[in-house]
Amino acid sequence: MLDIKLKAREDKRVRAGHLWIFSNEIENLDKTAVSGSLCRVLSAEGDTVGYGYFNPHSLISVRLLKRGKEPLEKSFIQDYIDAAYGYRKEIGLRKYGRMVYGESDMLPGLIIDRYGDILVIDILTAGMELLKEDITKAVKKIFKPKGIIYKNDSSFRIMENLPVNPEIMGEVPQSVIIEENKVEYEVPLSEGQKTGFYFDQRENREFLKPYFKDKLVLDLYSYIGAFGIYAAKNGAAQVWGTDSSALAVEYANKNAKLNGVEDIVTYKRDDAERLLSAMGKKELPDQPDFVLLDPPAFVKNRKSLPQAINLYVKLNRMALEGLEPGGYLATSTCSHHISREIFVDIIRQAAYKAGKRVVMLELRGQAKDHPVLVGMPETEYLHFALLQVR
Amino acid sequence: MLDIKLKAREDKRVRAGHLWIFSNEIENLDKTAVSGSLCRVLSAEGDTVGYGYFNPHSLISVRLLKRGKEPLEKSFIQDYIDAAYGYRKEIGLRKYGRMVYGESDMLPGLIIDRYGDILVIDILTAGMELLKEDITKAVKKIFKPKGIIYKNDSSFRIMENLPVNPEIMGEVPQSVIIEENKVEYEVPLSEGQKTGFYFDQRENREFLKPYFKDKLVLDLYSYIGAFGIYAAKNGAAQVWGTDSSALAVEYANKNAKLNGVEDIVTYKRDDAERLLSAMGKKELPDQPDFVLLDPPAFVKNRKSLPQAINLYVKLNRMALEGLEPGGYLATSTCSHHISREIFVDIIRQAAYKAGKRVVMLELRGQAKDHPVLVGMPETEYLHFALLQVR
Repeated sequence: MLDIKLKAREDKRVRAGHLWIFSNEIENLDKTAVSGSLCRVLSAEGDTVGYGYFNPHSLISVRLLKRGKEPLEKSFIQDYIDAAYGYRKEIGLRKYGRMVYGESDMLPGLIIDRYGDILVIDILTAGMELLKEDITKAVKKIFKPKGIIYKNDSSFRIMENLPVNPEIMGEVPQSVIIEENKVEYEVPLSEGQKTGFYFDQRENREFLKPYFKDKLVLDLYSYIGAFGIYAAKNGAAQVWGTDSSALAVEYANKNAKLNGVEDIVTYKRDDAERLLSAMGKKELPDQPDFVLLDPPAFVKNRKSLPQAINLYVKLNRMALEGLEPGGYLATSTCSHHISREIFVDIIRQAAYKAGKRVVMLELRGQAKDHPVLVGMPETEYLHFALLQVR
Repeated sequence: MLDIKLKAREDKRVRAGHLWIFSNEIENLDKTAVSGSLCRVLSAEGDTVGYGYFNPHSLISVRLLKRGKEPLEKSFIQDYIDAAYGYRKEIGLRKYGRMVYGESDMLPGLIIDRYGDILVIDILTAGMELLKEDITKAVKKIFKPKGIIYKNDSSFRIMENLPVNPEIMGEVPQSVIIEENKVEYEVPLSEGQKTGFYFDQRENREFLKPYFKDKLVLDLYSYIGAFGIYAAKNGAAQVWGTDSSALAVEYANKNAKLNGVEDIVTYKRDDAERLLSAMGKKELPDQPDFVLLDPPAFVKNRKSLPQAINLYVKLNRMALEGLEPGGYLATSTCSHHISREIFVDIIRQAAYKAGKRVVMLELRGQAKDHPVLVGMPETEYLHFALLQVR
């Protein structure tokens, strides 16, 4: 096994719970090693800090799979996925949800989402790719799926020099029906965004339940309508939703029918900013009193951060401007580059620019099948707030 | 009415939603004005920014009661308390809870907690004290209480040159029984901490419901046992609790009986650090697998912040050290000086020093009857996290 020796004091972050080692922290960087090789990590003093896998061509040279002196068990992939599933069962999730969430489950570079009989797996790194056979074996044993999609379309794979074509094992239908918070959703698998569904907002949807009663809800960036249809099933008087993707809108309307709420739910392909602008000018047929704003991760890298912040401020400002006192805005960001503090600041700026008195009823994060690893802020990316205009 | 003129550009924070004006931001500071006088606030350009009350002897010279040009209505106290109660009814609170939360309800310096037929009111500023007659009239009309306690024991009152003796109107018993999350609590009124009960943790208690099953719970800084008895009523196998106050422990054991869980709940007067240390050495009769850690606000001013942080880190570190994998820690801070970021950093440091892999399942704040006013970070003070050792 490859030995990676750290420079003096560079073991500190790892000892504090972080699982990544950057190339500039390594004493003996061997550019000729095979990408993804298992390795042992040593401190400058020669103590074993942990075990992981190595990529000489990535800024993140090592991702740890284990901390401490004890070597990795042969069965570690199976053991870790078992433990990860054990945790999901403990929090009440079995059939639907994120069963493995990378670093937080000590499996950096591996995402496993369960859609009942179908697993959708994302492998993000060369190191995890080398363990694919073990992963397939383990998930077949643990989840007994009818079909597996290795989605493998993440841009991380390009950085790791991995192919980005999906692979299908067993029988995989075009879509599946899942249940979440007592609502059913038909989810497109291969054609859908990410692994198909945003499980990370499950608890935020549920949290909103008491606030939808008799509301006219505007669901922006709706994707397949998960928020809006949940609103309609839980007391909303009317739901208008929009997404820029025709496929998303098609599924959103299908999902309204599936739940018997098509009479009060309408999704149309449109531009969220255009709708917000119309709302501000009171040009919509009815004035919404509940806005759901769940925009995509506009910021893909640090450089585009200021521009993305401006865009988030603008969208939130427009939504607040359009709401009368008593109206609600449920707003989110889902980019790793937007910290909780930046998110709160976006809300503050938006309220200021809208000239509205705004209270924050609750600030939330990602669902518990995406737990945050303490000591590794990178595992936290979703922020959510419920605001009310006073 | 007094006119307060701001220096150039000092209207910016207020326009961004803040309600305080500091003495150094005022052009025409009149030290001879009566403390608490109503005033109009003008920008350097002469525009009316808002209305509030003035204290020439406080660093916070003005607290706004209204933003914008329109003057205060004569009935504003009644109107604001009505609106504040309207919001509580909307979020499902009527009989028990915080009915007015200072700045967030546009009533800086006023706290009104409802314990059924009894109101406990805290007036923190000279300006609000001058409005006491209106307040009493309004709350009698709105809540029809049998008794009112003006608790008036806050250290803020000393800074405002106000007397700190309580005042009782009507019939006020020594204690009342309230209901929260389907649990009953007997709450000491005049003798209790703060207004008697910590309503601000209501939703955090409820949030923990699914995690107590079969757990051996250690409830530290328990006060009258609200967390621990909720745990016992919701599946915990055993609850050991402690507080340094004899009165708190007496009420905690009373409350265990009141809810019929006295067989599995024991509160004793003890020192939380001593218990955590015993837990770490496995000297307790049974090893807890769920620690509730809700320490008091150790930090009363900025100067004592580093010392307080160290103490919070120590307590959290000790709790994490004592837990086996799978064990939970529900931890809080409740000081205005501990921001959410500092709180998360305390957790990170504690996990590091304990040498444990820790995940954060959820990060939460204060209950919704204590809403955060966007643009005024001072209205946010309670942080809460559920952690699990892996």
